[in-house]
Amino acid sequence: MSTKNAAPARGTKDILPKEAQLRSWAVSRIVETYSRHGFSQIEVPIIENIEWLTGGVGGENEKLLFKILKRGEKLDLTAIKSEDDLCDLALRFDLTVPLTRYFANNHAHLPMPFKAIQIGPVFRAERPQKGRFRQFTQCDIDILGEPSYLGEIELIAASAEALNALSLRGFDIKINDRRALESFSSYCGLEESRSGEFFITLDKLDKVGIDGVAKELAAKSFAHSSIDKAMKLIQGLSSGRDPVDFYSEVGVDDPVLAQIEAVASFSKDLGGDDYSVSLDPTVVRGMGYYTGTVFEVAYPGWSSSIAGGGRYDKMLERYGVGSPAVGFSIGFERVISILEESTNPSRGAAQRYITILFDEADELRPVYQLANQWREAGYAVSLRHRKAKIGNQLKRLEAEANLARREGDFFGVLIYPEGTEPKEL
Amino acid sequence: MSTKNAAPARGTKDILPKEAQLRSWAVSRIVETYSRHGFSQIEVPIIENIEWLTGGVGGENEKLLFKILKRGEKLDLTAIKSEDDLCDLALRFDLTVPLTRYFANNHAHLPMPFKAIQIGPVFRAERPQKGRFRQFTQCDIDILGEPSYLGEIELIAASAEALNALSLRGFDIKINDRRALESFSSYCGLEESRSGEFFITLDKLDKVGIDGVAKELAAKSFAHSSIDKAMKLIQGLSSGRDPVDFYSEVGVDDPVLAQIEAVASFSKDLGGDDYSVSLDPTVVRGMGYYTGTVFEVAYPGWSSSIAGGGRYDKMLERYGVGSPAVGFSIGFERVISILEESTNPSRGAAQRYITILFDEADELRPVYQLANQWREAGYAVSLRHRKAKIGNQLKRLEAEANLARREGDFFGVLIYPEGTEPKEL
Repeated sequence: MSTKNAAPARGTKDILPKEAQLRSWAVSRIVETYSRHGFSQIEVPIIENIEWLTGGVGGENEKLLFKILKRGEKLDLTAIKSEDDLCDLALRFDLTVPLTRYFANNHAHLPMPFKAIQIGPVFRAERPQKGRFRQFTQCDIDILGEPSYLGEIELIAASAEALNALSLRGFDIKINDRRALESFSSYCGLEESRSGEFFITLDKLDKVGIDGVAKELAAKSFAHSSIDKAMKLIQGLSSGRDPVDFYSEVGVDDPVLAQIEAVASFSKDLGGDDYSVSLDPTVVRGMGYYTGTVFEVAYPGWSSSIAGGGRYDKMLERYGVGSPAVGFSIGFERVISILEESTNPSRGAAQRYITILFDEADELRPVYQLANQWREAGYAVSLRHRKAKIGNQLKRLEAEANLARREGDFFGVLIYPEGTEPKEL
Repeated sequence: MSTKNAAPARGTKDILPKEAQLRSWAVSRIVETYSRHGFSQIEVPIIENIEWLTGGVGGENEKLLFKILKRGEKLDLTAIKSEDDLCDLALRFDLTVPLTRYFANNHAHLPMPFKAIQIGPVFRAERPQKGRFRQFTQCDIDILGEPSYLGEIELIAASAEALNALSLRGFDIKINDRRALESFSSYCGLEESRSGEFFITLDKLDKVGIDGVAKELAAKSFAHSSIDKAMKLIQGLSSGRDPVDFYSEVGVDDPVLAQIEAVASFSKDLGGDDYSVSLDPTVVRGMGYYTGTVFEVAYPGWSSSIAGGGRYDKMLERYGVGSPAVGFSIGFERVISILEESTNPSRGAAQRYITILFDEADELRPVYQLANQWREAGYAVSLRHRKAKIGNQLKRLEAEANLARREGDFFGVLIYPEGTEPKEL
């Protein structure tokens, strides 16, 4: 077998040490920030009974399920009618659906409201493309059991602080409400039963533009008068119309409008630094389970959002434990990409590495004592036998350091027994 | 649907906040310790192409594979002859087999020797029982590319320090060598081709005792004379015979014996505090891929080992990149169980929590400012609307605190606007 065949499975990736360190730093900053805001980390299994991941709640993601073959006697290859006969488990496609099962299963042992942090891998059998993987990390916070907009504000304010803790600034948090979208749809004369289709198309505004949305609506045979009305409203927004005017024109109920405004205003005042909050009546968020506020975070120079979420008050009903719920998800992989491309070096403390080279014939104890002294001083220390051609070995060490180096890092070598201080590579 | 159905999939578990916090603390201590010793964290995908997880290298674990159904056109339900036609991917059953693929795929971008830390979930379709799960976390360190016993010593010394960092003391690191086991087997007159079977039975010594091993060897039709010889040797060890005598009697080569003794002596001297190292000629470690040193860690009061590993110099050859390798795995779930049962409270810093109760009609800004003041002072602060029956609400808060409380933790409540300092719950 050649080395070439050792590639990871299609759409998955091996994470090298330098990226793993960045990811680990990002996780610790996020958890630290959310913990201060009263959120608790939990872990939910990666595999779930397949019936919990199907049945509509996951929308399009259900089509992307990785299903697990039954085992032993349960698997009867002679009597297969459909895939359903073959599989009993599946890999989770997000962290929200498993969280609702977790809450239903454990609510007696949890505070109420319950504020959860989850960071972990999810799986979707999508066609792989640049920046899109079949296994990727999600980072979600959710508040279960808080009916008031305090839930939204806590999520958004804490998340703005978490993004700040990752050295991200200048982002815009865009806020809307599913109920306002319903008013918009109805104002344009769309039947209520078709509002879902309208939202799915509207959600593509960032990607296909106003004309693209109009074209898709026409293709879906919406009435021309409705499409014209919707386009005019959207054009108004892009020409700088005050979103509050928009909401008033389409007839958003006063309490809903008051809540949207309150969420926006408090989210700006009570969170971190250096970001903006805006109302955006075109924000949809893909998932069909949202029932109220929806929000997403735009980052300058990035076309798709880096975080988002919303209220999903009905979702827990499938488990017989109705409870209001609101969630926020940081696009962890996207944030890592931004940090990797950033020239800003603030990605955690600089690291200090030393390699001690010694002769295989040297007594090991004093070498190890020397290593431990530097370890106690905060250095990451490795021991290696020195080679006959030490010049080549030093070149190799320097090349390795350059592969791993981030701004501010120190890579040194200490040749035993001559050296007493590490020499920078 | 009733709440009862919300249980996680068979053999998996939901991790509650208190355990999640302990696990997260343990991970950070382990990573911190190994990093100081020059190990780098990496991440390898959870799903792998099925051919890399089959074909013998995983031994018995291959029978416990969770296989993933092919998708789309690749899946033809009309032409199924065996499971192989149905599946293209599987969940990893350990971290070692994927690591060797990772190294083959990425060695050009990695230092040599490469010192890796991996902590993550693995999956085995075992019959669930107390303490045995179908999804569980493994914690492995490996050194790839170090042919000398410096590899073993670095792994064992660093791991002893990592176990110390988790407040574990008094453990015993038992060391043996596969080559010494071969000498043992051959000295007892066993054919070389059957030594693997002999080791598998010998590996059960801790569980079934000397008589149990003798019985199983007889059942496997080993010659009586061989069994008698083996039993006498094992009995000698349990009566306190010096393992070095044992090794000499069975004819272990001098260089192998010298290496075993060096590994044992340095592992004791160069690692952490308060543990012992002993030679144990009966240590096998289950996996067939070991080629040299094997070791495992016994913890007082626990019948099965809490960590172990060994040298597996041949395993990378399947990828065409032969490289010496040695690995050590901490039984993460077992260690968490020990810490959970421990009366010793040293499981990370005490946590301080405050809940601020305020009236829904109160202005939110000053409440949030108060919350942020306490957050800056290091407290985890949650906001809740106060209820009409505040007595009941306080009782509920106290009950929640008692569910989450660990020794030393502070749980306080601050009733706004009257309160200025949190009152302990």
